[in-house]
Amino acid sequence: DPNLKVFSLNSNRELAAEIANFIGVELGKCSVQRFSDGEITINIEESIRGCDVYVIQSTSSPVNEHLMELLIMIDALKRASAKTINIVMPYYGYARQDRKARAREPITAKLTADLLETAGATRVITLDLHAPQIQGFFDMPIDHLMGVPILSEYFKKKAMNEDVVIVSPDHGGVTRARKLAERLKAPIAIIDKRRPKPNVAEVMNIVGHIDGKVAILIDDIIDTAGTITLAANALIEHGASEVYACCTHPVLSGPAIDRIKNSTIKELVVTNSITLPEEKKIDKIVQLSVAPLIGEAIIRVHEEQSVSTLFD
Amino acid sequence: DPNLKVFSLNSNRELAAEIANFIGVELGKCSVQRFSDGEITINIEESIRGCDVYVIQSTSSPVNEHLMELLIMIDALKRASAKTINIVMPYYGYARQDRKARAREPITAKLTADLLETAGATRVITLDLHAPQIQGFFDMPIDHLMGVPILSEYFKKKAMNEDVVIVSPDHGGVTRARKLAERLKAPIAIIDKRRPKPNVAEVMNIVGHIDGKVAILIDDIIDTAGTITLAANALIEHGASEVYACCTHPVLSGPAIDRIKNSTIKELVVTNSITLPEEKKIDKIVQLSVAPLIGEAIIRVHEEQSVSTLFD
Ligand SMILES: Nc1ncnc2c1ncn2[C@@H]1O[C@H](COP(=O)(O)O)[C@@H](O)[C@H]1O
Ligand SMILES: Nc1ncnc2c1ncn2[C@@H]1O[C@H](COP(=O)(O)O)[C@@H](O)[C@H]1O
Repeated sequence: DPNLKVFSLNSNRELAAEIANFIGVELGKCSVQRFSDGEITINIEESIRGCDVYVIQSTSSPVNEHLMELLIMIDALKRASAKTINIVMPYYGYARQDRKARAREPITAKLTADLLETAGATRVITLDLHAPQIQGFFDMPIDHLMGVPILSEYFKKKAMNEDVVIVSPDHGGVTRARKLAERLKAPIAIIDKRRPKPNVAEVMNIVGHIDGKVAILIDDIIDTAGTITLAANALIEHGASEVYACCTHPVLSGPAIDRIKNSTIKELVVTNSITLPEEKKIDKIVQLSVAPLIGEAIIRVHEEQSVSTLFD
Repeated sequence: DPNLKVFSLNSNRELAAEIANFIGVELGKCSVQRFSDGEITINIEESIRGCDVYVIQSTSSPVNEHLMELLIMIDALKRASAKTINIVMPYYGYARQDRKARAREPITAKLTADLLETAGATRVITLDLHAPQIQGFFDMPIDHLMGVPILSEYFKKKAMNEDVVIVSPDHGGVTRARKLAERLKAPIAIIDKRRPKPNVAEVMNIVGHIDGKVAILIDDIIDTAGTITLAANALIEHGASEVYACCTHPVLSGPAIDRIKNSTIKELVVTNSITLPEEKKIDKIVQLSVAPLIGEAIIRVHEEQSVSTLFD
């Protein structure tokens, strides 16, 4: 369909090429550069009048640069008479700032939703939002894809013979662990952190049976990797035979790579919702592509078919 | 008035302190930091419920960081029940992207106006917009201050005995040159660039009398300083005795500082609408403060008096 156009900005160029290839289209021609003073300049080099445009951009680090590239691109597309402007954000940045936890905090996840709308986006396709409630921050349609099927396929193919247990590193992630456990027909366990008194180190209890089992930790985001590496240590101490970890979004900032290298985690399985720079591509990390998932979602959205059946 | 609060973000901390001092208030307590992954986190550390809040922030380089700091701050203020949210932007970034010069270009100056409005700003106070038409991009009140009175005071005090001529480096800046000339009771001249044939170097003609005179070049923004240093050379070649230059906004990106150092410009007079980092504070550059101008404007806005009389 010549009216379906896919553009990539700077956050996920490889993934975007894979997606275009999956759909069977060429990536739209467009350059995203900086002027001498750092201001963004965008050049769309082909007509998109009357087209359904899909723009692929995660608001991964540098988050403010990637977000502004996206907003400026949406503005340019709107003024160039695109029919629909569909934002494909494999990783939705600022998602952890989704509520006022203290007085006078911003709710940046809602702000960015409003900014995308103001710029002129007409639909969002995204993956594993930190909290599903963020869907309600948008007044436009949002298609919310899941990374668990991709992660579970990997572990299925690995065909681990031993007993497996899926572990949530905290209470907030139990639903996610449950979903992976169902697909792998495995039981779950939960790391139950508790601070006995103020200013005393946290104690890590484990709810569930892990003794002698292969544990697979799952989270949505791994950022500085503090939580996940401490959880892995606790699992080994409590008798797990091996620890794998997986997540959809490999933010991996600050000390993350060193911590993972030096941890008891045998392998960390992530997706390419966030591009890993070369220095973060260490042996322990396996990166799975979300291109088929997102490609299929774009085709279905474009043909006005249900996206929910993607998860059956 | 305890209901008047002034906050500074990261772009112009010294100027903000000067402004607060001029008004006679303490700067509001607030921290603007980064999480490990680069996301902005803002902490407003005092109640602002029911207050008229003035936030001082230029969208100077790094423009996208400074803009996002501002948008997130506005969101936090709005949710913390500020009565009015008044944005003081001594320098309005992206102002040069104020029209579609070619097909499929964004109009980022309009986009950023919309973003400020969406976040919740209720008023903008700014200085020497690249084009006065940008005022029309806002649906909220905008107070547009002028840098020329500050620049002209400096040259008046210098009491240059010789004949002075005010020079516009291009056709677009003649109105600005005219304003400075009126205040200094001097004539104007214009650099008239022309390309005789395609792919042939530009020729610089000078319209007006400069022979034996002290020339003062004026522009709104000096960015890479190409235009202004070439203009200065042309003026000297055509017989000017000395060349000064001045502008409101010292963007000074890329080769600017080297070009100015090596140029025939005797002194470059700028304002502190943009903070100069240490390495840009060279001997040839004189920086004048806009704190009294902006401080006075804030007082008048707060007391609902006219700001236009500031220019009489
Ligand atoms: N980029 C970030 N890095 C680390 N912490 C964050 C970030 N953004 C928000 N937070 C904090 O993380 C908490 C929310 O995380 P969670 O409890 O997992 O939903 C809030 O207290 C936020 O202040
Ligand atoms: N940050 C920037 N640095 C250099 N040129 C720019 C910048 N932003 C916009 N422009 C270009 O400057 C031109 C407008 O400048 P002017 O003709 O002086 O209004 C447009 O062609 C823009 O593409």
